[in-house]
Amino acid sequence: MPAAIDAVELTRDLIRRPSVTPADAGAMAIVEEVLSGLGFRCRRMKFGEIENLYARYGAAGPNLCFAGHTDVVPVGDSAAWSKDAFAAEVVDGLLIGRGSVDMKSAIAAFAAAAADAIAAGRVTGSISFLITGDEEGVATDGTVKVVEALAAEGEVIDHCIVGEPTSAETFGDMVKVGRRGSINAEIVVEGVQGHVAYPHRAANPARPLIKMLTALQERKLDDGYPEFQPSNLEVTMIEMPNTATNVIPGVARARLNIRFNPNHTGRQLADWFDLEAWRASVDFPGKITVTSSISGEAFLTERGAFTDLVAAAVADVTGREPELSTSGGTSDARFIRALCPVIEVGLVGKTMHQVDERAPVAEIRTLQQVYARIIDRYFAA
Amino acid sequence: MPAAIDAVELTRDLIRRPSVTPADAGAMAIVEEVLSGLGFRCRRMKFGEIENLYARYGAAGPNLCFAGHTDVVPVGDSAAWSKDAFAAEVVDGLLIGRGSVDMKSAIAAFAAAAADAIAAGRVTGSISFLITGDEEGVATDGTVKVVEALAAEGEVIDHCIVGEPTSAETFGDMVKVGRRGSINAEIVVEGVQGHVAYPHRAANPARPLIKMLTALQERKLDDGYPEFQPSNLEVTMIEMPNTATNVIPGVARARLNIRFNPNHTGRQLADWFDLEAWRASVDFPGKITVTSSISGEAFLTERGAFTDLVAAAVADVTGREPELSTSGGTSDARFIRALCPVIEVGLVGKTMHQVDERAPVAEIRTLQQVYARIIDRYFAA
Ligand SMILES: [Zn+2]
Ligand SMILES: [Zn+2]
Repeated sequence: MPAAIDAVELTRDLIRRPSVTPADAGAMAIVEEVLSGLGFRCRRMKFGEIENLYARYGAAGPNLCFAGHTDVVPVGDSAAWSKDAFAAEVVDGLLIGRGSVDMKSAIAAFAAAAADAIAAGRVTGSISFLITGDEEGVATDGTVKVVEALAAEGEVIDHCIVGEPTSAETFGDMVKVGRRGSINAEIVVEGVQGHVAYPHRAANPARPLIKMLTALQERKLDDGYPEFQPSNLEVTMIEMPNTATNVIPGVARARLNIRFNPNHTGRQLADWFDLEAWRASVDFPGKITVTSSISGEAFLTERGAFTDLVAAAVADVTGREPELSTSGGTSDARFIRALCPVIEVGLVGKTMHQVDERAPVAEIRTLQQVYARIIDRYFAA
Repeated sequence: MPAAIDAVELTRDLIRRPSVTPADAGAMAIVEEVLSGLGFRCRRMKFGEIENLYARYGAAGPNLCFAGHTDVVPVGDSAAWSKDAFAAEVVDGLLIGRGSVDMKSAIAAFAAAAADAIAAGRVTGSISFLITGDEEGVATDGTVKVVEALAAEGEVIDHCIVGEPTSAETFGDMVKVGRRGSINAEIVVEGVQGHVAYPHRAANPARPLIKMLTALQERKLDDGYPEFQPSNLEVTMIEMPNTATNVIPGVARARLNIRFNPNHTGRQLADWFDLEAWRASVDFPGKITVTSSISGEAFLTERGAFTDLVAAAVADVTGREPELSTSGGTSDARFIRALCPVIEVGLVGKTMHQVDERAPVAEIRTLQQVYARIIDRYFAA
């Protein structure tokens, strides 16, 4: 029988591998070694430069999957850290390090919980791990590719827990049962350069660009959707460089992002951008091009047995019912939901991606208990 | 009695001094030497780095002034020129070189015309030259300072001819009796940087900027003014840089320019910018700052004896009545009109500021004839 896993020590081992996307730095090998030791069949799935791992314990159904990522965001201003970002030092009960919250701790906590469940013989189906090395980067060779490959093989995953930090203020106050969709668009307006004193010989690209951005930002997208915030558009970049005060530039660009609830699809929004580009180009002798890129559609894991089970597991350990939320950014859950219902359960996210990212050691152990309760309730059901 | 001046040869001498603003390269000394030889009292007026010259022949009134500049714009792509930009070569009757049109030729043509009038004893009042070395640059130490100094001394100039290239298609088809005003404004919007998924924690500067630019560019300023084109606004720069698709930037900037007719003053337009900034900042937690800079107010030399005299002089030589126009960019006439009525009369401007700037040798001589007729009619009146 394999030995129990110390989730905090495993987290520290993982933090000490500086796996800043797309670097792996040996982080995935640690996960693979630990899971192999527990009897998981491990498969490395490398796409492009990216290390991915799918590991399964058991052959029977149901298959409960844990999904996460070993990669971390850059350190940022390393001089501003109170401790080395990859030293994984514990100070006053806080584990300091890049990945301590997002989300090496969650991988370690679920592995420790799985080890206990396997040792106790409570895994009557299968437990699997879907771990990627590219969640924080462009995420094109990570979970999305693994999900495609598993689907093509007919691998069945019944339910998935994602280890992203989801708690808002205190541990267990929030889990995520869906995410808003996200779409990016780049608008390029090609006009005709000229002199401000002779505007009839020029075509100022600022004119249709401002017209179009006004139409986009003045529309109220919706008033929200059950479990979701209202959809929201932000212009993220505008660029019409020019140092001369008497020159009309020839080209202007802008980028925008919409986070949207299930009132919309990415396709509909992209069509709307094209429509507004067409409207803004009426009477404009130049050209407007919109390139849209859908990062993920909005999705929701409907309330039911699975959400009840996860909420009950959190309540078992913390005494509180978590809020079932869809707030915040995107995560790899957007890819996994193509395979099965998915819920995200993790630590308090406040320090993630920041200087002195840190997790209370006690909360990593509490997270392990929550994961253990999820596993127990799942296979007892 | 001083010898006659060859306007074409003097233009060539001037072109051979590469007086790209703020360099003088000896150009002003040539003008001074020629005018001194004609009996002008020459005064160098240096402001900052800039050479300026005020020269007067005669002490009695009326005083007819010629204003111009020895500085030229940069060569640009020198490899694209068919001849060296400062070699002043004549090819097929065309004098090629930087300043051949704008406006070393006009200085030479007026000097040659003045020489003849002086030799013939027809200058019953005074002729003066107001020549600056900074018209093409920031123009802060050029004509504006000379005009201030002369006004402070009580120097009387009764009428002024500016030698800017004013003809549109063929020589003599247009003179300028006024200019539109010009105002530049820079808008800086300071918001709060943040993440697109958490817009309530950020304040996107793009929102009020786009709102304000829409208000500015959608207003019809006017339908024109007698002798003037309609006023026109152009956004000349927008800058809200950002490489990340999930970040709301903290600052956005824009610049704009208005060319305006006498329906407006620079002060009124600057007040309007401030008003629209205030409107756009309602409900915006950040800050909008507008910095306006009035390059020149609109002005018009009303139709009357002076415009009739100049138009008749052009008709004497070319057989055509010139259009009295206020189109195009700004010129130093905006400063001189504080002293006296001013009309601009010069060559066809098509090649000015371009590669292979060139003037037909015959047209330089025709310009000299027009200036001679202006001088003769002026002192005969
Ligand atoms: Zn993460
Ligand atoms: Zn000029």
